[in-house]
Amino acid sequence: MTKKKITFADIAEYTGFSKTTVSRYFNDPDSLTVENQEKIAEALKALDYKENKLAKVLANGKTEFIGVIVPNLYMHYYSDMLSEIISTYEKYGYKFIVFAGNRAPEVERKYISELLAYNIEGLITLSHTLSSKELAAYNIPIVAIEREQQHVCGITTDNYMGGVQAASLLVKSGCDIIIHVNSDIPESMPAYGRISGFKDFCEEHKIDHRIILTDMGNNFEENHAGILKLFKELENEYPKKAVGVFMPNDTHANILLNIIFEKYGKLPEKYKIVGFDDSPISREAVIPISTIGQQVSIMADEAMKLLISQMDEQKKRRPKPLSKPVNKVITPILIVRETAKPRSVS
Amino acid sequence: MTKKKITFADIAEYTGFSKTTVSRYFNDPDSLTVENQEKIAEALKALDYKENKLAKVLANGKTEFIGVIVPNLYMHYYSDMLSEIISTYEKYGYKFIVFAGNRAPEVERKYISELLAYNIEGLITLSHTLSSKELAAYNIPIVAIEREQQHVCGITTDNYMGGVQAASLLVKSGCDIIIHVNSDIPESMPAYGRISGFKDFCEEHKIDHRIILTDMGNNFEENHAGILKLFKELENEYPKKAVGVFMPNDTHANILLNIIFEKYGKLPEKYKIVGFDDSPISREAVIPISTIGQQVSIMADEAMKLLISQMDEQKKRRPKPLSKPVNKVITPILIVRETAKPRSVS
Repeated sequence: MTKKKITFADIAEYTGFSKTTVSRYFNDPDSLTVENQEKIAEALKALDYKENKLAKVLANGKTEFIGVIVPNLYMHYYSDMLSEIISTYEKYGYKFIVFAGNRAPEVERKYISELLAYNIEGLITLSHTLSSKELAAYNIPIVAIEREQQHVCGITTDNYMGGVQAASLLVKSGCDIIIHVNSDIPESMPAYGRISGFKDFCEEHKIDHRIILTDMGNNFEENHAGILKLFKELENEYPKKAVGVFMPNDTHANILLNIIFEKYGKLPEKYKIVGFDDSPISREAVIPISTIGQQVSIMADEAMKLLISQMDEQKKRRPKPLSKPVNKVITPILIVRETAKPRSVS
Repeated sequence: MTKKKITFADIAEYTGFSKTTVSRYFNDPDSLTVENQEKIAEALKALDYKENKLAKVLANGKTEFIGVIVPNLYMHYYSDMLSEIISTYEKYGYKFIVFAGNRAPEVERKYISELLAYNIEGLITLSHTLSSKELAAYNIPIVAIEREQQHVCGITTDNYMGGVQAASLLVKSGCDIIIHVNSDIPESMPAYGRISGFKDFCEEHKIDHRIILTDMGNNFEENHAGILKLFKELENEYPKKAVGVFMPNDTHANILLNIIFEKYGKLPEKYKIVGFDDSPISREAVIPISTIGQQVSIMADEAMKLLISQMDEQKKRRPKPLSKPVNKVITPILIVRETAKPRSVS
């Protein structure tokens, strides 16, 4: 950091080219012969030239920065998605400034102002804290993932189909009653589709079912207490029935599975469990959890494509705003493992 | 983004203050009365003024950016540490540009050049890919976490003490033989201390022990295959002995636990397991895993403090480089849960 800064003049002197030629190397390399490009590249190495992107950014406004807001990294789904998003660097070259925290709206607004102050080109948010209406008012390229996204572009899993798939698998695995547990999410959230898909399937096929909407807290201890209470209710109410439970995510499905193991040392025939997400915990559980897989890697890639198309538009002399937000829906994948499988297979 | 840019002149006109007063608001706010500060703050809001940090950065060189390189987010320990690091924003105000990927050295070098091109003020790395000698040559503030750190500042857990704690717990829980499984890590890595602490404790107390150093791969499937093989060996070699196993981390301890459950439906008396890290999976496992807890939140905070002290030095007119790297060692915490506990307690 204390080294003298290398300038175009230094490079010109070292190579014997004019400063104009050196400048062309940076701005229009193909106007030079390959041989001359190589000579300059070698000189940059020899002189230990450091590109100053910030200076470039002020000139052309392209920071190559994308802001990412995740609610937390405790839920395996979020750390999984973040991992896939930042891995797209190899493909698209964008850099990610990351904030985490499922906090008060004013904190999230502060995150966004910080990001804007650094001239991010776009924002990916997995957090539910601010309404899409408020996000849209920032007037920058945004992609929301699996959250309310009426006024901004977004990527969601086809949650409705996921609910149908989960209900169908539980029925095929021989349950007398099937139950979907979730928090009381508003209809505007994509995850609401899991509830309606589950419900519609059961009503259409006249399947004995129940939907339990309850808040299960925001950390492991609260989740565990809530799910233990739920399990005790199931034990009391359905002593003779085969009960299928569709949990809201794999983290919660895993907790239920462990509570059942604690009592029975195994998953007895009378219980079937389906999770959601296909996050690592579903494979790492005591027995592999059947789940509705979100195609996280495809979702991350589609989110980037959707964001890049908006960012490219912004770089045009007269950017045309989208007439309405684009929402892409990615099909979930039914992943049959040990906690619920069609009876013919078992 | 298409709005006209608000200048100091606009703010001056709106408030009736001079441009000098407006400028003082940004550079030395306390030189204004609180009343005048509030007037300007209201004007900024009314005019929808956006701070341009990039312009400021070019003027004073302080980007408030810290680069973070994690090997992956599959290992719970890394996503946990990343989460704690980015949470320090609330306390210290630094923003994090994050890269992930346990890749070839040239890829990691590319990450670092990218980060340098954005004038990061410092770098936190959890990746083992590049030697600390090479990292030190970048001549920027660096803190390494739990990796070889001979030539750069670093934070580690006291792994030697962790090895001693694990061995001691397994002995107290009534094992006939205790085994430490790890990969064949070089002595320069902090995690090597787990091996030597375990070994020294056993030799000193004349405890029947064994150390198995083997590569267990880089993803869940490889890990599972390797640990299944290990378990079969233990079953064959020690049919009548109580076997205590100290696994290299909680992710691997959980896999071993699940393999044992698959065979026995429980953790039989003859097996005891201790993990390392206290990552979420140790609580979320089928029965809670006894583990050596890395104090991740304290480590993240100490890493930031160590980095900030270097960054502050860099901002001085004549920064004095450290005469030698500072290495902070954080005491691990023995967390006794269900997979191994002292016999008197059980």
